[in-house]
Amino acid sequence: MFYFATDILGTIAFAISGVLVAMEKKLDLFGVLIIAFVTAIGGGTLRDLLIGNTPVVWMRDSVYVITIVITVIVAILFAKQLKYLRKSLFLFDTIGIGLYTLVGVEKGLEAQLLPIMCIALGTITASFGGVIRDILCNEIPVIFRKEIYATACILGGVSYFLLNKLPIPPNYAFIIAIFVVILLRILAVKFNIRLPNIYRN
Amino acid sequence: MFYFATDILGTIAFAISGVLVAMEKKLDLFGVLIIAFVTAIGGGTLRDLLIGNTPVVWMRDSVYVITIVITVIVAILFAKQLKYLRKSLFLFDTIGIGLYTLVGVEKGLEAQLLPIMCIALGTITASFGGVIRDILCNEIPVIFRKEIYATACILGGVSYFLLNKLPIPPNYAFIIAIFVVILLRILAVKFNIRLPNIYRN
Amino acid sequence: MFYFATDILGTIAFAISGVLVAMEKKLDLFGVLIIAFVTAIGGGTLRDLLIGNTPVVWMRDSVYVITIVITVIVAILFAKQLKYLRKSLFLFDTIGIGLYTLVGVEKGLEAQLLPIMCIALGTITASFGGVIRDILCNEIPVIFRKEIYATACILGGVSYFLLNKLPIPPNYAFIIAIFVVILLRILAVKFNIRLPNIYRN
Repeated sequence: MFYFATDILGTIAFAISGVLVAMEKKLDLFGVLIIAFVTAIGGGTLRDLLIGNTPVVWMRDSVYVITIVITVIVAILFAKQLKYLRKSLFLFDTIGIGLYTLVGVEKGLEAQLLPIMCIALGTITASFGGVIRDILCNEIPVIFRKEIYATACILGGVSYFLLNKLPIPPNYAFIIAIFVVILLRILAVKFNIRLPNIYRN
Repeated sequence: MFYFATDILGTIAFAISGVLVAMEKKLDLFGVLIIAFVTAIGGGTLRDLLIGNTPVVWMRDSVYVITIVITVIVAILFAKQLKYLRKSLFLFDTIGIGLYTLVGVEKGLEAQLLPIMCIALGTITASFGGVIRDILCNEIPVIFRKEIYATACILGGVSYFLLNKLPIPPNYAFIIAIFVVILLRILAVKFNIRLPNIYRN
Repeated sequence: MFYFATDILGTIAFAISGVLVAMEKKLDLFGVLIIAFVTAIGGGTLRDLLIGNTPVVWMRDSVYVITIVITVIVAILFAKQLKYLRKSLFLFDTIGIGLYTLVGVEKGLEAQLLPIMCIALGTITASFGGVIRDILCNEIPVIFRKEIYATACILGGVSYFLLNKLPIPPNYAFIIAIFVVILLRILAVKFNIRLPNIYRN
């Protein structure tokens, strides 16, 4: 139930991010719905396909589609309140990748993958929806801009396995790791932290 | 046999639509074949992956690949007769989405998904090939232009479930629903019907 | 073990091609790693999904991810030695498609697909990584430039089945077929061989 709630919250966050990008591009009602849907279920779908969990989770459980439709309607109605579009997009996308990274790590553990694979699966699950959203809306995918993005997911996943070695309840490690991803992403953008330069000029 | 014939007809329609777009972009013989192939099997492949029907249908049954190759050869030979390219493209793409929507709904029912999921599966199956075709040929995907597109698929799927409550043979409901999708799409483009505007100007 | 070695060599070749394209686009360290990773496992992932081999091979066996990471680090360090970027890219991409075509054909045979499907699977496996790499790096996918590309894979696959009818060890047929793909590609580019023109001017 706990991981399920995290998955639903991540779905909501990514659906809102999809609505924001689609409305900025002035897509019609259906374009907004499709972008929001693809952003929200894109990462989870790829995750389920890679580990062989088919039919994919949002086909087996209708709560995902229902959640996305309600989220899109509410987000469209409240879109005008969101004056600072870029900041809101960043916020919801960051919450989404934090939540989805750890859901992906958990699903990898359930599939009995090695920790390094669980971290890879969590990072892919978290990043893919945003990449698809950006490609369909003709933006440079956020993962390729010169910001710390996937690194935050990987370090969050690593922190989860480290925290699990401490004598704390597993749910605590899960939640703390989510905040590690979110915090790293916020700090990296706030302080303009870049990866080491690999080009000699 | 009935649904299989519908699947083959949809494959032919989408393959022709792929040839038309690829030849308009002056791709070479192989580029045309690849675009036609991807457009024709793209939707069905995604459908089979999402519900876990692997190996995918066109790998298990060689009639799909053979049909596509023959269709491409014939379409290239007769391409010059098609003076009105945009209208032909619209026609074959529309026939394709009508057929593929209902094939997708049927495959969803076979996989014992809820009706709402069957409609989603049918809409995704019908739209995806055209989206891939347009992206690879550097066009704005038809699903994002301000036309009724996926809505026609959804309403066709809904009509199928409504028609099934009437005392008519199931094949009749299937065929009528296909024509519902096609008719809605033609009417929407002919009368320039748009979705409600969600932006306050 | 033999096919496994071929798969690893193909992974290395495609990872290097990904590093070359990504560094030409001046992506940051993570962008380079992602492009290399997607290019290297993209084709094999699609192959495993199409035939239903899940979890996908690089999730089940960590040697693939480890190989890619080491290859990327070495390739970045030695990138400056590669003065002739376009030629190096062509070389590693060509080696990659030769190796991956035959690995794909073998995996198709293991899945008991018909020869025509094995050739299709091999061609798709070989081409897909490069297509994804080029799309993500905003290049026209190599498969759509007016060069012999997928045709080399198909002819290499066909040669494998023909060679298997000769009284030579199967490994010999496998290796010769790999060189058929590579040689056809090199000859086609060197002598500017094009497919037949399908447009009447």
